[in-house]
Amino acid sequence: MRYHDPTDVASAPDRDRGGDVALGSSVAGVTTEAWHADLAWLPPGQVRERVLIEVEGDRIVAVTPDAAAPPGSHRLSGLALPGLANAHSHAFHRALRGWAQPAAASDFWTWRERMYALAEAMDPDLLFELARATYAEMALAGIAAVGEFHYLHHGPGGRPYADPNAMGEALLAAAAEARIRITLLDTCYLRGGFEAPLEGAQCRFGDGSVAAWRERVERLPSRPGAQLGAAIHSVRAVDEASMTVVAAWARERRAPLHVHVSEQPAENRACRLATGLSPVRLLERAGVLGAGTTAVHATHLEPGDVDALGGSGTAICLCPTTERDLADGVGAATELAVVGCQLCLGSDSHAVIDLFEEARALELDQRLVTLRRGHHRPEQLLGAATVGGMAVLGWDAGELSPGRLADLCVLDLGSIRLAGWTTQHLAASVAFAATAADVTDLIVGGRWVVRDRRHLGLGDVPKLLARAVARARAASGERG
Amino acid sequence: MRYHDPTDVASAPDRDRGGDVALGSSVAGVTTEAWHADLAWLPPGQVRERVLIEVEGDRIVAVTPDAAAPPGSHRLSGLALPGLANAHSHAFHRALRGWAQPAAASDFWTWRERMYALAEAMDPDLLFELARATYAEMALAGIAAVGEFHYLHHGPGGRPYADPNAMGEALLAAAAEARIRITLLDTCYLRGGFEAPLEGAQCRFGDGSVAAWRERVERLPSRPGAQLGAAIHSVRAVDEASMTVVAAWARERRAPLHVHVSEQPAENRACRLATGLSPVRLLERAGVLGAGTTAVHATHLEPGDVDALGGSGTAICLCPTTERDLADGVGAATELAVVGCQLCLGSDSHAVIDLFEEARALELDQRLVTLRRGHHRPEQLLGAATVGGMAVLGWDAGELSPGRLADLCVLDLGSIRLAGWTTQHLAASVAFAATAADVTDLIVGGRWVVRDRRHLGLGDVPKLLARAVARARAASGERG
Repeated sequence: MRYHDPTDVASAPDRDRGGDVALGSSVAGVTTEAWHADLAWLPPGQVRERVLIEVEGDRIVAVTPDAAAPPGSHRLSGLALPGLANAHSHAFHRALRGWAQPAAASDFWTWRERMYALAEAMDPDLLFELARATYAEMALAGIAAVGEFHYLHHGPGGRPYADPNAMGEALLAAAAEARIRITLLDTCYLRGGFEAPLEGAQCRFGDGSVAAWRERVERLPSRPGAQLGAAIHSVRAVDEASMTVVAAWARERRAPLHVHVSEQPAENRACRLATGLSPVRLLERAGVLGAGTTAVHATHLEPGDVDALGGSGTAICLCPTTERDLADGVGAATELAVVGCQLCLGSDSHAVIDLFEEARALELDQRLVTLRRGHHRPEQLLGAATVGGMAVLGWDAGELSPGRLADLCVLDLGSIRLAGWTTQHLAASVAFAATAADVTDLIVGGRWVVRDRRHLGLGDVPKLLARAVARARAASGERG
Repeated sequence: MRYHDPTDVASAPDRDRGGDVALGSSVAGVTTEAWHADLAWLPPGQVRERVLIEVEGDRIVAVTPDAAAPPGSHRLSGLALPGLANAHSHAFHRALRGWAQPAAASDFWTWRERMYALAEAMDPDLLFELARATYAEMALAGIAAVGEFHYLHHGPGGRPYADPNAMGEALLAAAAEARIRITLLDTCYLRGGFEAPLEGAQCRFGDGSVAAWRERVERLPSRPGAQLGAAIHSVRAVDEASMTVVAAWARERRAPLHVHVSEQPAENRACRLATGLSPVRLLERAGVLGAGTTAVHATHLEPGDVDALGGSGTAICLCPTTERDLADGVGAATELAVVGCQLCLGSDSHAVIDLFEEARALELDQRLVTLRRGHHRPEQLLGAATVGGMAVLGWDAGELSPGRLADLCVLDLGSIRLAGWTTQHLAASVAFAATAADVTDLIVGGRWVVRDRRHLGLGDVPKLLARAVARARAASGERG
C-alpha cells in the first residue's frame, strides 16, 4: 500500500508545462523541457550561474552550469533552489493564525483547547477547502511537498463517516488541487493520556484499536502525487504495544513513520511516571526509532535521548516558528545534528508559512540559548528545508541533480531583503534574509505551479483562504 | 541645540503630497490633505473602518472613523498604522547582511572583528550612499523614523575630517534623501575597555575627551526632519565622569539619550571587576538612568537591575533579530515592562529590516525561555514598534490622533500572510504574521514617501543598495 511516487504528468494541463506548449517537445509520450536559471543552488551546496536544467517527464535528466539557453528553453529569472519540503503540517490549524494569540498569560494546553474547538467544527468539505488554500499558500512560498500529520479522522463523537477515510481523502484532493506533493502521515491516536480515555474532540481522532487504524489506513486509495506514511501521535496517545504495530506496518511497507516527541515537559513527566522512561526511550523500547522514522520537535530531551536518536538513525523534524509560538522551548538541534540525525523542518501549526524563516530559526534559536554563533552552516539550513525534508517524506527530490524529481522554486534576487547578495555568499543571504514573499515560481515534477507569484491552478489564493478560514471559524461557533 | 521637529514641508515636491497636486488645498500657506483608509489602527488599540484622517501641514488635525470619503481625499487601500519607529540602527552594518554568517563556531566578538573591518573602510561618501539605501529599505518596510546610534566619527587612525561632523552629516543627508525622520544619537566613545585604550577601528570612534565630543556635537547643523540626541556607547567605552557629562548635556537640552547595556555577559564581568557594580548600577550611579534615557538590549541583567531601570523611568530598546543573530541571548523584557519601562524596538545590525518581525520576536523569545505564552498583548507589541519608538526618539508621532505628526504606513490586507484576518483580531494578525513585504505605502509628515511599494524619491532601492553594499565591501578589502 503505497501511493505512486511521481506526480501524474498526464493529468497536468499542457498550459502549465513550461511557458508555452509549443516549446515543449514530446518523444514517445515523454515530455521534454529545458529550464535555464540565471543562478541555481546545486549539490553539494554551490551556487552556479547560467544553469540549464533538462527535464523528461517529471524528472531531471541533466544539470549544466555555465550553459547557454537553448531555443525553446524557459528562463528562470533569479535563483533556482530545489522545491522546499514542509515535513510537518496540520493543515486545519491555519484557521488559528491571528485568532489564537492570548490576551493574558497562558500556555500550550490552553492553546490546545482552542485548537480542539476548531477540530470539532471540521467536516470533509471544510477540511478540503481549508487544506487546499493552506497548501496553495505553501505553493506560493516555494513548498513542493507537504507532510500532513493527519489525526482528525472521524465525525462528531467519533462516528466514522460513510467513507471512513473521507477526511484523509479530503487532504489528498486538497494537495492535488494545490498541485503540491503530499505524504499523508495517517496518525494513530488511541487514548487521551497514559491513564485517560479519549474525550471531547479527541474522540474524532481515535480508531479504537491499532487493528482498526490499520484496517482503515489500508483502504486509502492510491493517488498520483501522494504517498502514504504512518504516524504515532505521541507516547501519550498510543500505548506501547500499538506503537510497535504501527512501526512494523510502516517498516514493512518502507513508508515514512513520524511521531511527536517531547514537545512539552508535561509529556516527559507523564511518561516517566507511567513507564519509568523518557518518551524517546519508550519509543526505542517499542521499536519505533530507526532509519525511516522522524521524531517531531524533540524539544525536551533527557540524558541519553540524543544518543538513542542518533544511534538509531532517526531523523528530527524541527518546527521552530511553532515552537516559538506555542512556548515549547528550544531543543538540542545542534547536538542531534552532531550525532548524525538528519534534520528537517515543518511549519506545523502555520503560525507562519515560510521555510526560510524556519531554516534560520533553527540556527538562531540555538544562538539564543548557547550565546554562540555558527552551529549550522547556511548550506545545512537550506538542506534541512529541501533534501532533508524530502527524504523523510519519501520523495526522491530536494536536490537539483539528474535522476531527481524536477521540483524547483525560484527566488527573486531583486528583492530588497537580498540586496547585496554575491554568488559566493548567496546561501547565507538566502538562509538568513530571504522570505516566502521572495518566491516567484514553483515547479513540481516539471509542471509550473506558481509563476510570477500567481498560482496557475487556483488564482486568488488569499481570497480562497480567507473564505475557508471564515467558514471554519463560523462553524466552530466563534466569530472573529 | 536641537533640530527642527517637523519635516520640512516646504521642501517636499508637490507631486508627493497626496495623489495629485490638484487634490490638495492650500490656505494661508498650510497644505491640507485628507486620507481615507479602509481600516486604521487607532488609539487605544482598536481597528476601525472607513477612517478619515485629515492633515494640515505635517500634522493630523482630525481622525474620524465610519466616515465617507470626501471628494479629493486619497484612498488608502488596506490597514493604516502609524508610521513605524526603528529606535536603534547602525546603518553601515547593512553591508554585513549575508556576509558575516560564520562557517564555524564563533561568537559576538569574532563578528565584531568583521564589523570593525567594514568600519575601517567607510568614508563620508560611502556612508552616505550606504545609509541612504538602508534608510530607503526602512521606508519600504513602513519605517518613518530611525534612531541612528552613530559612533563612526573620524577618518582613518582617528584623524578628524576637515568638517569634523562629515560622517554625521552624511547620515542626516541620507535620511533626508530617503525621506524618513532621523534622530542622530551622536555617540561618545572614549576607550577600548575599562583598562584599554582605543585601538584599530576604535580610533575612528573617539573624540579624545567628553569635552571634545561635546564641542563637536554642538557644531552639528540643524536640519529639517532631524533631531539630535546623545549616546554613551557603553560602560566599556566611556568612563563614569564622562558619562555624567553626556547625560547632563542631554538632559539640559531635553534631547534623547541612549546607551548600550549588558548586550553580552563579558561586559558585565568586566564592569563588575572594574567597578564592583553591574553596568546598570554603574549607569545609575553616574546619573545616566531616568526619563529621556533609553537602555539598548539590557539582555544580561543582574539582581536589582530591573528595579533600577523601572524605578528611574528608563526606556528599553530591544533588538530581537540582532540579539538572535549575534547570540546575545534573551533578556527580561517582560519583567521590564511590568516595572513600567517603555519598550521599543530596533533593527540594530539590520540582519533583517522588519519591525513586525522584531515586534513578534519580543513576545516569542520570551515564550521560548519561559515556556509560557501571553507576556505582551498584540497591541503592546505594535505600540513598541510605533509610539514607543517615536517617544524615545523625541518625535510626537506613533499614534493616529489629532495633534500628532502625520506619519502612516499601510499594510496590504490582501496579503496571503494575513488571509483570514478579522477586524476584531487584526492587531494579532499583524503582530504575529505581517512582514515588511506587506507594506504598500508610507507617509511621513503628510508627504507620500512610498506608494504602491515604490520609493517616490529614490526609485530602484534594491539596485542602490546593491551598489552601495558592493562598494563598501570592496573598500574593506574583501570581495564576496
